[in-house]
Amino acid sequence: MPLEHDKKTEFAEWYSEVVKKAEIVDNRTPVKGANVLLPNGYGIWENIQKILDRELKATGHNNYYFPMFIPEELLNQEAEHFSGFAPEVAWITHVGNRKLERKVGLRPTSEAIMYSMFSLWIRAHTDLPLKVNQWCNIVRWDTKETKVLLRDREFLWHEGHTAHATYEEAEEQVKESMRIYEKLFDDLALSYIILKRPKHDTFPGADYSVAYDAPLPDGRVLQIGTTHNLGQNFSKAFDVKFQKPDGDHDYVYQTSYGISTRIIAAILSFHGDNKGALIPPKVALTQVIIIPIYFKNKHEIVKEAANKVLETLKNAGIRARADLRDNYTSGWKFNQYELLGVPLRLEIGPRDIEKNQVVLVRRDNGEKITVPQDQLVKKVKDTLDAIEETLRQKAWKRLEESISEAKTFEEIEKIYNEKRGIIRTNWCGNPECADVLKEKLSVEIRGTKLNEEEEPFHSCVVCGKEAKQVVYVASAY
Amino acid sequence: MPLEHDKKTEFAEWYSEVVKKAEIVDNRTPVKGANVLLPNGYGIWENIQKILDRELKATGHNNYYFPMFIPEELLNQEAEHFSGFAPEVAWITHVGNRKLERKVGLRPTSEAIMYSMFSLWIRAHTDLPLKVNQWCNIVRWDTKETKVLLRDREFLWHEGHTAHATYEEAEEQVKESMRIYEKLFDDLALSYIILKRPKHDTFPGADYSVAYDAPLPDGRVLQIGTTHNLGQNFSKAFDVKFQKPDGDHDYVYQTSYGISTRIIAAILSFHGDNKGALIPPKVALTQVIIIPIYFKNKHEIVKEAANKVLETLKNAGIRARADLRDNYTSGWKFNQYELLGVPLRLEIGPRDIEKNQVVLVRRDNGEKITVPQDQLVKKVKDTLDAIEETLRQKAWKRLEESISEAKTFEEIEKIYNEKRGIIRTNWCGNPECADVLKEKLSVEIRGTKLNEEEEPFHSCVVCGKEAKQVVYVASAY
Repeated sequence: MPLEHDKKTEFAEWYSEVVKKAEIVDNRTPVKGANVLLPNGYGIWENIQKILDRELKATGHNNYYFPMFIPEELLNQEAEHFSGFAPEVAWITHVGNRKLERKVGLRPTSEAIMYSMFSLWIRAHTDLPLKVNQWCNIVRWDTKETKVLLRDREFLWHEGHTAHATYEEAEEQVKESMRIYEKLFDDLALSYIILKRPKHDTFPGADYSVAYDAPLPDGRVLQIGTTHNLGQNFSKAFDVKFQKPDGDHDYVYQTSYGISTRIIAAILSFHGDNKGALIPPKVALTQVIIIPIYFKNKHEIVKEAANKVLETLKNAGIRARADLRDNYTSGWKFNQYELLGVPLRLEIGPRDIEKNQVVLVRRDNGEKITVPQDQLVKKVKDTLDAIEETLRQKAWKRLEESISEAKTFEEIEKIYNEKRGIIRTNWCGNPECADVLKEKLSVEIRGTKLNEEEEPFHSCVVCGKEAKQVVYVASAY
Repeated sequence: MPLEHDKKTEFAEWYSEVVKKAEIVDNRTPVKGANVLLPNGYGIWENIQKILDRELKATGHNNYYFPMFIPEELLNQEAEHFSGFAPEVAWITHVGNRKLERKVGLRPTSEAIMYSMFSLWIRAHTDLPLKVNQWCNIVRWDTKETKVLLRDREFLWHEGHTAHATYEEAEEQVKESMRIYEKLFDDLALSYIILKRPKHDTFPGADYSVAYDAPLPDGRVLQIGTTHNLGQNFSKAFDVKFQKPDGDHDYVYQTSYGISTRIIAAILSFHGDNKGALIPPKVALTQVIIIPIYFKNKHEIVKEAANKVLETLKNAGIRARADLRDNYTSGWKFNQYELLGVPLRLEIGPRDIEKNQVVLVRRDNGEKITVPQDQLVKKVKDTLDAIEETLRQKAWKRLEESISEAKTFEEIEKIYNEKRGIIRTNWCGNPECADVLKEKLSVEIRGTKLNEEEEPFHSCVVCGKEAKQVVYVASAY
């Protein structure tokens, strides 16, 4: 039952296979790019929601729900924003058999609808900061080929939106959102490089965008989260003004940030192997799968013992499940739960019962650990932590190995052909040079280091003119 | 700051006012019927989600997320279902500037999209029961006048969908969903009558529908939850078959059930008064609001004491908040949190600190309770429970008072003009008689008692012919 495709040599095929066989997503749906998140996939999202929601509330965010419907004139109010999203907006034009007087768009993101309300809510500095969070579905009807979780036409996300009295406070908010995100990524054992996107790749309407690029095993990067300092661009477009303590009026300073179900693709790609998925303990629907080892005439005793272990783990707040079915062999079950990515297996058979012990088997390295029953909860928790730590170290090692340096176009070309990865190089700042990279090598200038002025070490990698920045270049999903 | 409109004499105006001033919903949005759920309203929904989600998981439901997009041919597959929902379906016809080859509907409910997947997933009796739950947004573009939370074009809900091997198991599932719902309604201190809807008001495609009608203060009823036995209607339409242990094949037996954000309207209508909302403790965003009573030169001591109380309550798992602002008077704050519906107020001033006590004030009856600090947590919990119990008793008393009996059309007319409410009467079973009631009095035959055959006590209230059923009649939202 191991996967048919090899993760190293056939990553794209492996990914499609693992998403399906690990029961993360079913894409046999009638509209391409709008798929079913199955319990093993939705469970990851639910646990991510819990982690983020707790942190967002602890930092003063309140949850709201805004309409999905955005009329064209509203989306159009910030020109850059509109031109960035308009090609992917799905429009409702009819209800039943009737044509609507004006078409209504489905949110590709909620800046427009939210900020039109902010302009009604914000009057004075005492109304600030306003920190809004929303959990919802998003529609971006990409006309390019869809790719499960990586490029979906409907997906789920959280979006944070804040309004502040000063630019400095907005800057602090960007940092706060980054702290929240980095804590989550740490729980997911993901590695990433933090980049300030170049102007031509900034979120439409933002002053600047900070993005997290995670290195996937095929050498391409995946953006797993972003946070934007919107400055006063939207507040001017949507007339969101406030009165300052001195009586003067000013437009608010805004930020927005988001993480979507796309991050599940990073989790699968980072941690899975040729046996299947491997879901990090903090977000796994099932953290521990209990498999009774049946011997003839001992069924009932083993079942009872397995149920007792299950109760003990559940009472300790561990997401455990027991597969007590006897029409499947233990071997079949071992393979099945390895495929599903359950991080820890617990085996218990007649001999273990006699010895008052259980056997733990780690999904990441297959290590078997015999544990006395009276240390059960502690050892399970420690082992889950150890699995997470192993995944984390491997993830950061991959990032390190994925970064190369190039001075010339030939060097980039060579690296790209050999292993892709993230390439540190020099850029003159001309978008035309970025276009050349994109056209000739399908790589993008992903951005510059945040809060760290790096001195160019060569001339522009494309045109050879004087370089202005050290940039990081990669092929991206 | 009490409300301008009187709940008893101007219920509709009172409702619109309380929804707005208690910061439940903001409807100043660009598309009518698609509103913003504000934190004080969304918080109710989040807490309802937690209660329901826990129960659904404990009874073996798994959470999924299905696409919002339903192509016409799929929605059309069960004819009755389609004709029931088609007039309210919003259709996407364009993306960006391009026309789609086939229009795509937005889910008015998920039977069609889910069951098309069930037909891929279910093969054998070992795949059953399948118990699916989904949290999502729903679009029903009613052309009638929209009414905040009561008739929204976009709303949030949970929908449960199950498939079983036998009709009996489906019947058991209907009962399970009812137990889960009734536990929730109990937590919300709502009263209701349980009715089996007449054939002409059954969910389109269902064998039968069971609905919970809650008596609102204006004498009309509001459906707060429904559960449907779908029989094999959908499984035949969507070809959801399974192999039985004996090798034969059969179509699965299905159920579905749902509760939406509409229930927030019932909560507000039941418990609110002329001072504002009153949110039942189990679902209130803030259960206890702490108001420091400032005296000159004592600010810091009082603030510190208030913060200490806040910590104690939070650590005990109580959703408490302190309003420490000193640019608002205590009196203003009292009114404000009464308006918002926080069920319990905690006051603490210099004299209380000296005496090592706090003062609790119940939102429901204004009762003041002095509590020694060392009994704080217990007394707060007990008082929240007492508030809930008081609301519950009032709710059931209202149901009792709202039920009348009528033998003749004149009697119904009289009751309707005096007080509306729920009227117990007799019906011949002819839908034309139901139409007469609807046209002449705007009342509907809501259904019959479930699992209780009631003997007619008079002839049909409309046509005077022999009655077949005792039915309950009401004006409904």
